[in-house]
Order: sequence, then C-alpha cells, then structure tokens
Amino acid sequence: MGVIERGFFVERAGDRIPGILWAPDEAVGPVPLVLIGHGGQSEKRNPNGLALARHFVRRHGIAAAAIDAVDHGERGPIAAIEDPAGHPDYIALWKRPDTFDRMNGDWKATLDDLLGTGLFDAKRVGYWGLSMGTMLGLPFVASEPRIRAAVLGLCGFAGPSAVRGRFGPRHRIDAPNVTCPVLFMVQWDDERFDRDGAFELFGALGAKDKRMHVHPGLHGELSVEASAATREFLAGRLT
Amino acid sequence: MGVIERGFFVERAGDRIPGILWAPDEAVGPVPLVLIGHGGQSEKRNPNGLALARHFVRRHGIAAAAIDAVDHGERGPIAAIEDPAGHPDYIALWKRPDTFDRMNGDWKATLDDLLGTGLFDAKRVGYWGLSMGTMLGLPFVASEPRIRAAVLGLCGFAGPSAVRGRFGPRHRIDAPNVTCPVLFMVQWDDERFDRDGAFELFGALGAKDKRMHVHPGLHGELSVEASAATREFLAGRLT
Repeated sequence: MGVIERGFFVERAGDRIPGILWAPDEAVGPVPLVLIGHGGQSEKRNPNGLALARHFVRRHGIAAAAIDAVDHGERGPIAAIEDPAGHPDYIALWKRPDTFDRMNGDWKATLDDLLGTGLFDAKRVGYWGLSMGTMLGLPFVASEPRIRAAVLGLCGFAGPSAVRGRFGPRHRIDAPNVTCPVLFMVQWDDERFDRDGAFELFGALGAKDKRMHVHPGLHGELSVEASAATREFLAGRLT
Repeated sequence: MGVIERGFFVERAGDRIPGILWAPDEAVGPVPLVLIGHGGQSEKRNPNGLALARHFVRRHGIAAAAIDAVDHGERGPIAAIEDPAGHPDYIALWKRPDTFDRMNGDWKATLDDLLGTGLFDAKRVGYWGLSMGTMLGLPFVASEPRIRAAVLGLCGFAGPSAVRGRFGPRHRIDAPNVTCPVLFMVQWDDERFDRDGAFELFGALGAKDKRMHVHPGLHGELSVEASAATREFLAGRLT
C-alpha cells in the first residue's frame, strides 16, 4: 500500500497550526487514524515519526497525522538541537501556565478538522506519543473521549527532564482520567526520566486495560522490537 | 496440527523423574522444544501448563515437555492445594541445601534424554517457567547453555513467597549468568512477590537481550495477552 503525504493547517484562536497527514493511497471508506505527538526539541516531520507514520499506513492501513507542538518546528524557535540542557525557549515553554491547555485545544481542533473530511473512522482514533509526546499528550488523551487507545511512555515523575514543572502537578491530576487502553513504554536505563518515576506514572494511569513494556537502553534508544509493539498494539485496538 | 501427549520417565541418581511430552503429530524432522517448569504446589500436568503446551504445539509447531519438580506431583507429597501459607513439605523443600542442584540435574538429564531421541533440534530449545518455575528454573537456565531463550517472571527478591530462603541468595549469584534472550513477566498487583523485588530481579539478569512485560493483576491472574506474548516470544526465537 502506498503512502500519500500532505501538509495541512488548522486555524484556532488566532493560531495557525501546521500539520502533516500520511494516508493510504488505496483506501476504500474511512480508515483508522493515529495522532502522533513528537518529542521535545523536535518537530512534526522528524525521522522516527516519519518512519512510524509510514509503517502505520503500509503495514496496518492506518492513517497518521502529526502537528508541530507549541513553539516547535514551524510554530516557533524550538527545533532539533543537541543541547541536553534545553533550548531557552523550551525551558520557557514549561513555565507558561497555558501550555497544556493550548496543546489540548490544538489537538482537539486538529481532530475536528481531520474527522470533518470524512476520510477517517471517528470510532477508531488512537494517540501515539513518547517523551514530550506524553508530557503534552497525556492531558489530551485524558480529556478526549474520541481517543480509543494510546501509546505513552519514556516519561515519568522523576528525572532531569521532569523537573521545573515540566512534568508532575498537571499530570498527577490527569493520569487517572486516562481510561482508554494504554501501552506504556519504559527504557530501563533512561537518563532523562528515572525508571521509578516512570513506574509511578504507569501506576497512576486510570486505565484498567494497560500494560508496560520495559527494555534496556537509554532514553533515545527505543528498540525495533519496542517500536513494532507500539504499532501492533494500536493496530490491534483500531483495526 | 494435532497434539500427541505421552508420559516418560528419566532415571537419574536413583531418582525416577516423571515427565510429559507434547509433540506435533505431523512433524517432519526435528522440531523446537520448550521445557515448562510448573508453579509451586502444582504438578507437571496442571490446567494452565497443559493449555500452554498444546498452544505451543498447535500454533507454533513447537514441542513442549514438563517434569514434576522435586517433591511435587508423582514425586512426593506436594500437590495442588489452596493453602497460601504453604504445605509443610513445600516449606521444607526450600530449607534443604540441595534443592536447586537436584532440580538442575533433573532438567539436564531430561534434556539429555529428550535430545537423545533425535526428535528435537538441539539448537532450538527454550525454557518457560513463572513463579516457582523461575525459582527453580533460573538456576537451571543460568547453568545450561543449551537453553537459547527463556520466559521467566512472577518472581523476585521480595514478598511473602520470596522469604525464608526460597528466593534470594542462590538467585543473586545465578541471575547474572542468565545470558540468553529473556522475556520477564510481572503482575503489577502481585501479592506474593513485590513488584520492586521483581524489577530488581529483571535488572540483575545478565542478558543484554531482555524485556519485561507488566500487566495489572494478582499473582495468579496472568492475562490471555500476557500468556500469548510469552509464546510469541519463544516462537520468535526458536522457529
């Protein structure tokens, strides 16, 4: 099955949110849809996300869509950089009180627009987001009943990337409201989010139907096996 | 594919070890083999083990074999009982200094005999054992290079079922010597082995190629999904 890629924009509250859609070129009728939340200091069309989206289409017949997170990619100064301490604008993002609600609104408007096309099955929508894709995606999944299954993880309540308000207070409130089936991924040697804090986050998720896969490796070393399991999980729930 | 079930006995050091073999009825040439270690206060032909063995044969073309553990089933007074405090002979089993080495010897002799038939591929042998199947099976896997992949878990260094020498000193020594690929299973709400001690055991395993799957539920509540994952893992390594 071939992959059609096209850009789109979502207009919301004065914002113009850029996105990319990957869809099968031979779809007959509405197909399932997975929203992909990218990682921190990255953008909607990053190499891993691109490969993931194409696999969703080619191997599972599932469309995928990604948007630039607030201040990332085409929306601002934060792009792919190697500085582990963080871009100043990235640090600032987590100090602003409206970051989570803006992102929730952006995703909801994106989903509204995508479902409005009639190309996707509104009852078969999933979310995939690790690391910042969980930091910003967990509040979205918690508040959006149209998300029927989610892949979350590489994230938790402790570690260098959890500090300074980036992860914690809002997520403690929202985690019990994540009630759709969840696959939660942990890297045993994660240097950005401590494993104990990741386990605590898994425990806090409200979903009865949840499972956690743990693999050796650093934060950025998600294995082929682990990545495939995330796709298989969503495919199993949405197709 | 149909399943042939037949009993066998292994003679070793004056012991007569009873076992059961489940094999495909249509095998052409040597097939992979999985050794199944049963749980505590159970025996070689228990309902879960029987279903697992049949699934290995029917769905994967993999033969399975189980033996009664020391003092269990046909080998002694310990059988399936509901007493969570433990049969007195079960408690005594863990106080005897030779329990682990006896079981290692029993499994090695069983594997010798089974491979001697020529029915199985000596390069595609796996081990599957949870709970007591890990308590007794981990030392075996650590010492037996013919085991190419193992499913372990529902076990760890803490909790009511780990105390009194049942689990700990021997396993701390042996865990780093488990170097074959491992899938380690944890029940998040395990009332017999604390999850923290299970995580510690996972961390202690020497295998570089290891992964841990964690599901909600009590010790005895392994889900259909979790059980299927254990089969798929061994099938992926042995076929």
